[in-house]
Amino acid sequence: MKDVRVGICGLGTVGGGTFSVLSRNASLIAGRAGCSIRIGRVASRRQNESIELGDIPFSQDIFDVVNDPDIDIVVELIGGYDVARELVMAAIANGKHVVTANKALIAVHGNEIFEAAEAKGVIVAFEAGVAGGIPVIKALREGLVANRIDWLAGIINGTGNFILTEMRAGREFADVLKEAQALGYAEADPTFDVEGIDAAHKLTILASTGFGVPLQFERAYTEGISKVTPYDIEHAELLGYRIKHLGIARRREDGIELRVHPTLVPKDLLIAQVDGVLNAVLVDGDAVGQTMYYGAGAGAEATASAVIADVVDVARTVSHGSAQKVPYLGFEPGAMEELPVLPVEEIHSAYYLRVHAEDHPGVLAKISSVLSEHGINIESVVQKESELDNGKIPVIMLTHTVQERQMNQAIADLEALDDIDGPVVRIRAENFS
Amino acid sequence: MKDVRVGICGLGTVGGGTFSVLSRNASLIAGRAGCSIRIGRVASRRQNESIELGDIPFSQDIFDVVNDPDIDIVVELIGGYDVARELVMAAIANGKHVVTANKALIAVHGNEIFEAAEAKGVIVAFEAGVAGGIPVIKALREGLVANRIDWLAGIINGTGNFILTEMRAGREFADVLKEAQALGYAEADPTFDVEGIDAAHKLTILASTGFGVPLQFERAYTEGISKVTPYDIEHAELLGYRIKHLGIARRREDGIELRVHPTLVPKDLLIAQVDGVLNAVLVDGDAVGQTMYYGAGAGAEATASAVIADVVDVARTVSHGSAQKVPYLGFEPGAMEELPVLPVEEIHSAYYLRVHAEDHPGVLAKISSVLSEHGINIESVVQKESELDNGKIPVIMLTHTVQERQMNQAIADLEALDDIDGPVVRIRAENFS
Ligand SMILES: NC(=O)c1ccc[n+]([C@@H]2O[C@H](COP(=O)([O-])OP(=O)(O)OC[C@H]3O[C@@H](n4cnc5c(N)ncnc54)[C@H](OP(=O)(O)O)[C@@H]3O)[C@@H](O)[C@H]2O)c1
Ligand SMILES: NC(=O)c1ccc[n+]([C@@H]2O[C@H](COP(=O)([O-])OP(=O)(O)OC[C@H]3O[C@@H](n4cnc5c(N)ncnc54)[C@H](OP(=O)(O)O)[C@@H]3O)[C@@H](O)[C@H]2O)c1
Repeated sequence: MKDVRVGICGLGTVGGGTFSVLSRNASLIAGRAGCSIRIGRVASRRQNESIELGDIPFSQDIFDVVNDPDIDIVVELIGGYDVARELVMAAIANGKHVVTANKALIAVHGNEIFEAAEAKGVIVAFEAGVAGGIPVIKALREGLVANRIDWLAGIINGTGNFILTEMRAGREFADVLKEAQALGYAEADPTFDVEGIDAAHKLTILASTGFGVPLQFERAYTEGISKVTPYDIEHAELLGYRIKHLGIARRREDGIELRVHPTLVPKDLLIAQVDGVLNAVLVDGDAVGQTMYYGAGAGAEATASAVIADVVDVARTVSHGSAQKVPYLGFEPGAMEELPVLPVEEIHSAYYLRVHAEDHPGVLAKISSVLSEHGINIESVVQKESELDNGKIPVIMLTHTVQERQMNQAIADLEALDDIDGPVVRIRAENFS
Repeated sequence: MKDVRVGICGLGTVGGGTFSVLSRNASLIAGRAGCSIRIGRVASRRQNESIELGDIPFSQDIFDVVNDPDIDIVVELIGGYDVARELVMAAIANGKHVVTANKALIAVHGNEIFEAAEAKGVIVAFEAGVAGGIPVIKALREGLVANRIDWLAGIINGTGNFILTEMRAGREFADVLKEAQALGYAEADPTFDVEGIDAAHKLTILASTGFGVPLQFERAYTEGISKVTPYDIEHAELLGYRIKHLGIARRREDGIELRVHPTLVPKDLLIAQVDGVLNAVLVDGDAVGQTMYYGAGAGAEATASAVIADVVDVARTVSHGSAQKVPYLGFEPGAMEELPVLPVEEIHSAYYLRVHAEDHPGVLAKISSVLSEHGINIESVVQKESELDNGKIPVIMLTHTVQERQMNQAIADLEALDDIDGPVVRIRAENFS
C-alpha cells in the first residue's frame, strides 16, 4: 500500500502541533490508518525554532507545497482569508486533497471551495475548524447520519467561555479579558472572540453540516459578551440559569435560525456546566435525541488531533485509490436545501429582561400589561426592593418563548413608559427541552 | 450508483426502530449517503405488529437473510450469543457485510468474528453496541485516530445510572430497582445491568478500540451496584464526590486495567453530572486531552441511529465497489498489541473506606497507622460522633491512590483489629486529573 504524503503550510501553533503529533505518533497512526503518512514538505514564512525538520524539505513559499507533485494532501494552517483561499483553490486545481483548520475561510468561501473540489473529485476537510479537537463534524456528518437534525447549540469559543466563567465570581468583563490576554487565551485584538465572529464562523459550518443548507455566514446574527455584567450573571443564577455565549442553529419550516449571543440556560443542564476554555456542542436529532460532544476547542495538539483525523480519512481514500468520500457538508450537492437564514426578528426565544422601574405598587402590573399586549407572558419575576436607588428598583423577569419581533415592540413600549428609566436589558434564554 | 440492500434480522426494539428510522428518513439518508439504502428482506421469529412491511419479503428464519443473494449488509438485531454468532459467521462466509448492536456477541466472540471478516474482506460494525446512539466508537477509531489513548471511563449502562441517580434522594437500591423495572428501564432479570456484565461487555469493546488490544471480556473485573447504600452515597457527597457505576480502562506499561465498579468521582466533574438513564464516555488522549461523548445509551430509535450510521459507512464502501474500511478495533490486525488485562489486585485507585470503630480517642491514630504500614495516606476523614451506636461510630475516609493489593492487605489488618466491627466498606475513587 502506497505511502501518503502530506504537505504542511504554516508552522505556527497548529502547524507545529500537527508536525509534532504526526512525528511522535507516526507508527501508532500508521497502524490505525493502514498506510504510512509522511510529511513530504513544509512551508511557512519563518522556521519554527521548536520544530526539528530533519531532512524534510522546507521553504518559505507555501505554493511550493501545492506545486510539489509528490504531495497528496495539502494541510492549510496559515489562517486568514485571501492567501489561504488562493492556496486551497490552487491545491484543488492541482488535484490535491486539502485539510484545513481555517473556519473563517470555510465559513466565508466554503461554497465556492466545495464546488471546485467536487468538480475535481478531491476532498476538503475541516474538522479542526470547529471546536478544535472535538470530533463534532464527524459526529454530525457520519455518526448522526440517520437523523433529521432539528437544532444544535454550542459553546464554541473558549476565550468567551473562560471570560464568562470567571465573571461568575463577580469580576467585570474588562478585568477578566485582560487576564485572558495575559494567559494567552485571548488575542491582542480580541474582537473575533468576544464579539462572537469566530463563534459565528463555526456555527455557520455546524448548521450547514447538520441541516444540509449552503454556508451563509454573512446572514448570521452575532452579538458579543462585552455588555454582559456580573450583575446579570448573578441574577440569572438566582433564577436558576447560567449565562453562556452560545451559537444556536435551528431548522424551521421556512428557514434556519443562525445566531450567536449570550444566552441563559438552566443551570442543571450539562452544557451549563462546561466551564473555562472548554467547548461543547449539543445536537438534537429526531432519532437519537440529544447528544453532546465536549473537549478542548483550541490549543496546538488538541487542534492537531482533529487535523490528523482528517488527514487519516483522506489517506484511506488515497491509499485505496478509491473515489469514496463523505460529502463536504454532510449532504451530496444535489441533496442540499436552499433554506435561507431567517432575520433575527423572526427567531423564537425566551428572554431575561431587566428594567429600572418606579418603586410603586402598580408598576409590575403596568409592565406585565405592556408585555401581555404583545402576547408575552412572564414566567418568573424578581423585584429588588433592597436596591432602591433614586426612587427606582431593578425588576428582573424571565418570559416565555415569543418571536423576537414582538419582544422588540414590547421593549420599545416599555422604554416609553414614564415609570421606567434607561434602556431595558435583554438577554435571550433557552431551555433546550 | 447502485442501491445498497440491507437485510434486518430481529424485529424487536432495535430492529423495529431501525426499520422505522430507515423508512421515515429514507430520502434524507440517501442524500447523505450518496446512494439509496433499501430494506431488502426482514426476518424475525414473529411479525412486529407496529411495523408496516409493505412488500418487503418477511420470513421467520433469519438465515433466509444471510442466504439472500440480493442482500449486501446483514443487520443482526436478535441479541444473544450462539444463534447470533452462527448468523454473523454465516453472513461473513457468504461475503456479506455485518452491522450489529450486540455487545455481548462482540465482547465474547469478536476476535474470532473479526478474523473471519478480515479473511473475507467484509466489514463488521458495532457502533450501536456501545452507548447506544452516541457515536463513541467512531470517535475512538476515527476522530481520535492521532492519539495514544491513555485511559477512558464511561457511564455505559443506563439502568444502573438511573438507579444510582434516584438513590441520591435516600432511596434503597431494591426499591429503585422495582421502579426501574416498572418503567421498562430494567429487565425482569436485572443481573446483566445491575451486576455490571452489560457494562463490562461495552468496556471491553471500548478498551480494545482505544488501545488496540484483543478483546478479553473474560478477564474484566466486574462489580455491581446492588451493595451501594444511600448512606454511602450521602457521605460521598459530603466529601465532595458522587458515586457512579463506571467502566474504567487504563493502559499501563505491562497491561491494561479493565474494570467495572461503583466509583466516587468529584461532584464538579462533567461526568458526575450525567444523570438518569443517560450515558457518557470520557476519553483521554495524549494530543487532544479529555473529550466526552454524551447521550442516550439505549432505546429503539437512539440505538437505530447508531445502527444506521454503520449501515451508511458500509453502504459507501459497497456503492463505490471499494475495499476501503476502518479496522474493526481501530488498529490493523498487524498493529494490535498483545497486552494482557491486569488482575484487579494490580490496579491503582484511591478508595473510600467506611469502618465501624470504637469511640475512643486513640482509634483514628490506630486506623491510620495500620493504613500507613501499607503505604496508604488518608486524604480526608469524617467521624460521625452523632451516630454513636453500641459504643461504635462510623469513620469515613478517602485515601490517596495505592495499588489494590496493598489496600486488600490493609483492609484485612483493619478487620483484625479489636476496635473495629464488621467488614470494612470499600468503594474505589477516581479524580481523572
Ligand atoms: N490556535 C488554535 O488553537 C486554533 C484552533 C482551531 C483552529 N485554528 C486555526 O488554525 C489556523 C492556524 O492558526 P494558528 O493558531 O496556528 O496560527 P499561527 O500560530 O499564527 O500560525 C500561522 C503560521 O502560518 C504562517 N503564515 C501565515 N501566512 C503565511 C504566508 N502567506 N506564507 C507563509 N507562511 C504564512 C505564519 O507565519 P508568521 O508567524 O511569519 O506570520 C505562521 O507560522 C487558523 O486558521 C486558525 O483559525 C487555530
Ligand atoms: N434495546 C435497546 O435499547 C438496545 C440498546 C443497545 C443494544 N441493544 C442490543 O440490540 C440487540 C437487540 O435488542 P432488542 O432490545 O431489540 O431485543 P428484542 O426486543 O428482544 O428483539 C429481538 C428480536 O429478535 C427476535 N429473535 C431472537 N432470536 C431469534 C431467532 N433465533 N430467530 C428469529 N428471530 C429471533 C426476537 O423475537 P421474539 O420476540 O419472538 O423473541 C425479537 O423480535 C441485542 O443484542 C441488544 O443487546 C439493545
